[in-house]
Amino acid sequence: MFGNCIKNVRTAAPLVHNITNYVTVNDVANILLACGASPIMSDEPEDVEDITSICGGLNINIGTLNQRSIEGMFRAGRKARSMGHVLLLDPVGAGASALRTNTAVKLMKEVGFDVIRGNISEIKTLASGSGTTKGVDADAADAVTEENLDSAVAFVKGFARQAGCIAAVTGAVDLVSDGKSCYVIRNGREEMGKITGTGCQLSGMMTAFLAANPENKLEASAAAVSAMGLAGELAWERMQEGEGNASYRNRIIDAVCHMNEKILEEGARYEVR
Amino acid sequence: MFGNCIKNVRTAAPLVHNITNYVTVNDVANILLACGASPIMSDEPEDVEDITSICGGLNINIGTLNQRSIEGMFRAGRKARSMGHVLLLDPVGAGASALRTNTAVKLMKEVGFDVIRGNISEIKTLASGSGTTKGVDADAADAVTEENLDSAVAFVKGFARQAGCIAAVTGAVDLVSDGKSCYVIRNGREEMGKITGTGCQLSGMMTAFLAANPENKLEASAAAVSAMGLAGELAWERMQEGEGNASYRNRIIDAVCHMNEKILEEGARYEVR
Amino acid sequence: MFGNCIKNVRTAAPLVHNITNYVTVNDVANILLACGASPIMSDEPEDVEDITSICGGLNINIGTLNQRSIEGMFRAGRKARSMGHVLLLDPVGAGASALRTNTAVKLMKEVGFDVIRGNISEIKTLASGSGTTKGVDADAADAVTEENLDSAVAFVKGFARQAGCIAAVTGAVDLVSDGKSCYVIRNGREEMGKITGTGCQLSGMMTAFLAANPENKLEASAAAVSAMGLAGELAWERMQEGEGNASYRNRIIDAVCHMNEKILEEGARYEVR
Repeated sequence: MFGNCIKNVRTAAPLVHNITNYVTVNDVANILLACGASPIMSDEPEDVEDITSICGGLNINIGTLNQRSIEGMFRAGRKARSMGHVLLLDPVGAGASALRTNTAVKLMKEVGFDVIRGNISEIKTLASGSGTTKGVDADAADAVTEENLDSAVAFVKGFARQAGCIAAVTGAVDLVSDGKSCYVIRNGREEMGKITGTGCQLSGMMTAFLAANPENKLEASAAAVSAMGLAGELAWERMQEGEGNASYRNRIIDAVCHMNEKILEEGARYEVR
Repeated sequence: MFGNCIKNVRTAAPLVHNITNYVTVNDVANILLACGASPIMSDEPEDVEDITSICGGLNINIGTLNQRSIEGMFRAGRKARSMGHVLLLDPVGAGASALRTNTAVKLMKEVGFDVIRGNISEIKTLASGSGTTKGVDADAADAVTEENLDSAVAFVKGFARQAGCIAAVTGAVDLVSDGKSCYVIRNGREEMGKITGTGCQLSGMMTAFLAANPENKLEASAAAVSAMGLAGELAWERMQEGEGNASYRNRIIDAVCHMNEKILEEGARYEVR
Repeated sequence: MFGNCIKNVRTAAPLVHNITNYVTVNDVANILLACGASPIMSDEPEDVEDITSICGGLNINIGTLNQRSIEGMFRAGRKARSMGHVLLLDPVGAGASALRTNTAVKLMKEVGFDVIRGNISEIKTLASGSGTTKGVDADAADAVTEENLDSAVAFVKGFARQAGCIAAVTGAVDLVSDGKSCYVIRNGREEMGKITGTGCQLSGMMTAFLAANPENKLEASAAAVSAMGLAGELAWERMQEGEGNASYRNRIIDAVCHMNEKILEEGARYEVR
């Protein structure tokens, strides 16, 4: 029942601590507000423990990491873990640089996450400890398609077991697995790839879904993926003549703002494998 | 005459130096341009004194403070003070972490401000030197309402006297006081709370109003509060079907872009106590 | 053939590394996606060499520089230079602070650029090694107009020769020169100056044009200038009642999203001197 998951976000209104990149941070904040949660951002090592203490979840995104914010990630991560908060890792650009790959791998080992959400190239990098990505986008050769779906599902399940957490791999087809079952989600539109930060936004929103549904993390993660994709579909229907990726960005957040239990239940398209 | 205050901003076109958080900084820049001012951002300690020297006002917002930017705040603040520029402090998240509370308190002591603008929980924290906030939003228990208005006005007046500056406490009802009189402003819409950074935007715009109306700081502060709230009302009237908080954000800045003396005079709703 | 230049961007889809300010970075990313390129942002010194290695061009913008990002600029710049990538410098605020002026001058000497793009006051500062700017906007006294066009063209040609690169000076009339010939471009609208970051966006997009047209850098630079100005014209035609600078910002990026060879060829207005 994905509908229940978003309903719980609007009821619980969780406060989410985001250590995220400065490229898409404003959209992350606005989509958290749109889904009924509250965002707070802090990456200074001396500030993050206090901030994460008053939150219900921690979203770590390494998109524009630096030495200071990396220290903040570890300190916030350990504190959130010790308090039993939900933790999500978005390994933006893992595979594109040694610092990003190593930071993500070290965070997985030393902090531990409830969910890791990335594109297929980033997750392949984390699975093997090294890899290649086309910057912050997935390598086309890695893309999950209907043709390679079986092997992709097997890979994501395997990664989830190996990493000991839920794995959410988003792309043309989205896969969300806890190592045993795997949600295969077919919401979304290709044009979302022309907007910077739809992945970052999803990671923020997913952390809110997890914080509001702590007994049901796999479904909550899948519901967030479906909600984001569905928002992309509904927003596209509202596009006016001449509008492009900048307006589409706003319309997607707007669609999340209006999303409720009923809309998500009716619009979600997925199967469980 | 609030109308006169915005007219003076458009005529003087003050340059405003902002040391502000990276979450909402783009909207702060665009609303400053919308009201007729010019923004410049700089937080590097070795850069801020030169930058603030060519400006007419300094807006310090501690939303994503770090050790480097904190040093920048003090250096810019002292320089701006020594040059007689207007200074505004937005103590985002004071009460949510020791670093934020202590930084705000120390800035008040060592730099001094013409105006401190925050939500009621942040201002209560500064009044007592400690406190609790729900992240960057006001605690519901603290909210200023018609029911507790008398005591809230007394509190804000007292804080203004204690801090030796104008206090602007924004929320459902907005209060702006220099310790003697208090503007009670009833512009704005509840939905503005679903947008990240309307407070930050107001702080930026208020600094421009102060810089352009140096002989009339209390009224200029109140006029900025009223202009922001009125923009929220006018923008709401223009909302189209399916639009949500992302579009609302743009429409509010758009409404400021079109605001003039006449619109503000006619739309402002306030009393002085 | 400006049309060919944008066609090549859409075909090559170059990955562009941006070390840019946190004020306008989201718009820079979205306009790069809109024109068919891919953005990646990284300013941490230990990250930038890996990141720039997988890119086709490097865009350095000193808008909110700090000691860490300055080191990142030099390390990324040297790496990109050694790999033969195209490099662009946007000297935001050169003349407004010693740190900005000195950093820009030092980057020119130690890294070297294919293109320097700025407003006339910034370029005059770099030409003389010192100068004055009104914050991040050009000083009105410096503005390029039809009246002083001959001397402005001569100045820009001279600066290009002196700096050993293409100079792109944008304003009411845009000038792009390699020291021998000079494109005089008359696309654009005055209202673009009321949006934060149209210059930053242009610098990002221009780097993509350069990366996709390495044999034709002068024309590629001029084509990017013309495309940005034309997008401003087309976006303005789509403005609805009540819209202002925030919506205009989105509509300009949207217009780039829809721009193709034919639209650019037909809309470009320029002469070569």
